[in-house]
Order: sequence, then structure tokens, then C-alpha cells
Amino acid sequence: MDRGIFITVEGTDGSGKTTQIRLMEEYLREKGYDVVIARDPGGTDISEKIREIILDPGNGEMAKVTEMLLYASARAQLVSEVIKPAVESGKVVICDRFVDSSYVYQGYGRGISLKTIEDVNRVAMDGVIPDITFFFDISPEIALKRRFASTEADRIENEKMAFHMKVYEGYKSLASRFPERIKTIDATRGVMEIAEDVRRWLDEIV
Amino acid sequence: MDRGIFITVEGTDGSGKTTQIRLMEEYLREKGYDVVIARDPGGTDISEKIREIILDPGNGEMAKVTEMLLYASARAQLVSEVIKPAVESGKVVICDRFVDSSYVYQGYGRGISLKTIEDVNRVAMDGVIPDITFFFDISPEIALKRRFASTEADRIENEKMAFHMKVYEGYKSLASRFPERIKTIDATRGVMEIAEDVRRWLDEIV
Repeated sequence: MDRGIFITVEGTDGSGKTTQIRLMEEYLREKGYDVVIARDPGGTDISEKIREIILDPGNGEMAKVTEMLLYASARAQLVSEVIKPAVESGKVVICDRFVDSSYVYQGYGRGISLKTIEDVNRVAMDGVIPDITFFFDISPEIALKRRFASTEADRIENEKMAFHMKVYEGYKSLASRFPERIKTIDATRGVMEIAEDVRRWLDEIV
Repeated sequence: MDRGIFITVEGTDGSGKTTQIRLMEEYLREKGYDVVIARDPGGTDISEKIREIILDPGNGEMAKVTEMLLYASARAQLVSEVIKPAVESGKVVICDRFVDSSYVYQGYGRGISLKTIEDVNRVAMDGVIPDITFFFDISPEIALKRRFASTEADRIENEKMAFHMKVYEGYKSLASRFPERIKTIDATRGVMEIAEDVRRWLDEIV
């Protein structure tokens, strides 16, 4: 294998991304792949520092354009330091969120134009595009109830339900626009049932 | 006066910007103007946190695109929280560095295309353009010698002299492309001589 594979995972917080990423990692490792796990924003020292600023509930006065640019900054560093070198050396990279999160949270959610987000992120992504994206499809009413039961909410999670519904509609809209890349996975089912679905797609692509 | 005035100040570190900004502020206050001083990156809580990441000498692995996007993020917040509201309410804003610094440091200095910087910063600046920009023209060999005599160097100042020379040439090139907006001030002279020059331009514009 010359070039590796870049997999991204998307969905509302509480949609079960973390668990499924762990299962994907195990499955691919057992098959002998060299797997790198990353999260966006985050995944490098610099990107984690940027993540802290973005998610700090104390930064309530953050302008939506600032937020969009900070996500792009963290992403640029993650691409340059982790994703690009790993994929180029033949590894499988699984990233918890990527550019689709900017389209749905800052675009559909906050009303920044998708064109603006695309222009800024073209710079940040430096030609790196996911080979496949899993969208874990579950309504935020259910997903966030799960989530808040286990941890405290950050600045983005603190948004009103109307915001999370716009984000969710955004995901569904993106998934229907890019069906080749974005695979919609019914995330209301049991963990292993979902994992089976994901594995079928992984078998196709790796 | 309905709309205020937005003044930016540019030049190598050590070019005397800080002293001249203080003198400009005094001069305009005595004339009865409501003056706001800002610095870019910085000038808001969020922008100052971003500034820390940018300038931290420990962040040596920062990709040049990350750096450019972080400057744009800090600028977006400064525009939204400080510059735009102040100018709209009739104040005079004097800002230590602004978008021209991105053109010269990230563009001429690091080789990111000026078009890319322009696209990203159009989003960050939200229609806010300086009414007048003072470029304090002094070679970095002389300016940085002054500077390092007084304080420790940050991540950008730590760059090699070849980088600072590219930045300086960038400033001269921008100043000759936009002579209407950018006023070149010979900064090798004495403090009061320079201040006199600046005041003549201020008298014209306010």
C-alpha cells in the first residue's frame, strides 16, 4: 500500500463517535493496518491549545467568524503535522470530526456562507480530503441527553436545541449532496449493530 | 462627526511604533478626539489568548498556514469587538499592526500567496479597511538591534535576518502599490521629527 486512507467521523456529540472510533481502530489493527487516531480540533500541541480557546465556556463573546477561523487554524496544524505525513506514509488515519463539522456548525448552525467556509478551509486542508466520512445519524434530542448524562457541557454543547437541530439538518443535507463520500449510519441502534455497518464500509475501502 | 477614523501603524519591531502611537494618541486627545488604542494580534481577551499561542517561542513547529489563520482569527475578534463598534460610534482607532503585517510577514516573509492572505482576511476584516496606514521605514538591522537591547525576543522576532529583510522589502513594495493609503515615514530620525511628520498627515485626515 503506497498511500494510506483518511477516514473522518461526524455527528452530534453523544452520537457514539468515540465508541465507534475505538471499535474501528481495533478492527483495522487486527487486520494489520497501522492506524492513527486524531481529533479535530486538537491532535497536536498547538491545535489542542487552540481547542481550549474555542471550547472555553468563558469565551462567550467569541464572534462567529473568529470561531470559524480558529477551527481552520487548528485543522491546518493537524493536517500539516499529523494527517498528511501519516496518509503519505501509508497509514490509516481516523479523525473525530473534520471540515464537515465547520460546514454544519459554523455554516448551517451559525449562518456563515458555505462558500466562505470552503475558501478558508481550502487553505487549511492543503489538498487533504477524506476518502470516506461516517455520519452517525441520531437526533440531537436523544444524543445530547446521553452526552449530558456523562460529562459537563462545553461552549458549543451549551448552544440551544434549535442550534443543534440546524446542525443536524446540515449533516443530512451534506450527506445527500455527497453520497459517494459521506456514509450515513443509523446511530439509534445498538453499538455492535452500528459497528457491523461500519465494518462493511471499511472492508470495501481498505 | 458621524463615522470615526481607523489608523494603522506598521513596521519592523523596533521601528518606534509604540512611542509614535503614544504621541499620536496624546495629540489627538488634546484636539478633543475620543481615541482607542489597539494592537493586532491582541486587544480583546480572546485575541490576547490567540496572540500567546502565536508568539510562544515553544510553538516552533507551527505550520505557516496555521500562523496565518491564527493572525486572521485574532483580527476577526478585534474587528468585531473593538474596531468596528468604535469607528461606527465616531471614535479614532489607532491599531499597532493590522492586515498589512500578514501580507508582509506571512506573504513576503514566508511565501504564502498574497491572494490566499487576502481571501482569508476579507472574511476576518468584515469590510473594515484602514483609512490611513503609517509605515515606519527603518531597516531591520538597525531596528532589531534597538529592540533586542530592551526585551527578550518572541517566536517571530527570533527569525533570521534574511526573513526580516524580506518583510522589510514587502513593506516597501506594499507602500508603493498603495500610496494613497500607506504613508511611508522615515523612522531613522529623532522621535519628535518623526512625530511632526505624522501630525501633518493626521491634520489632513481628522
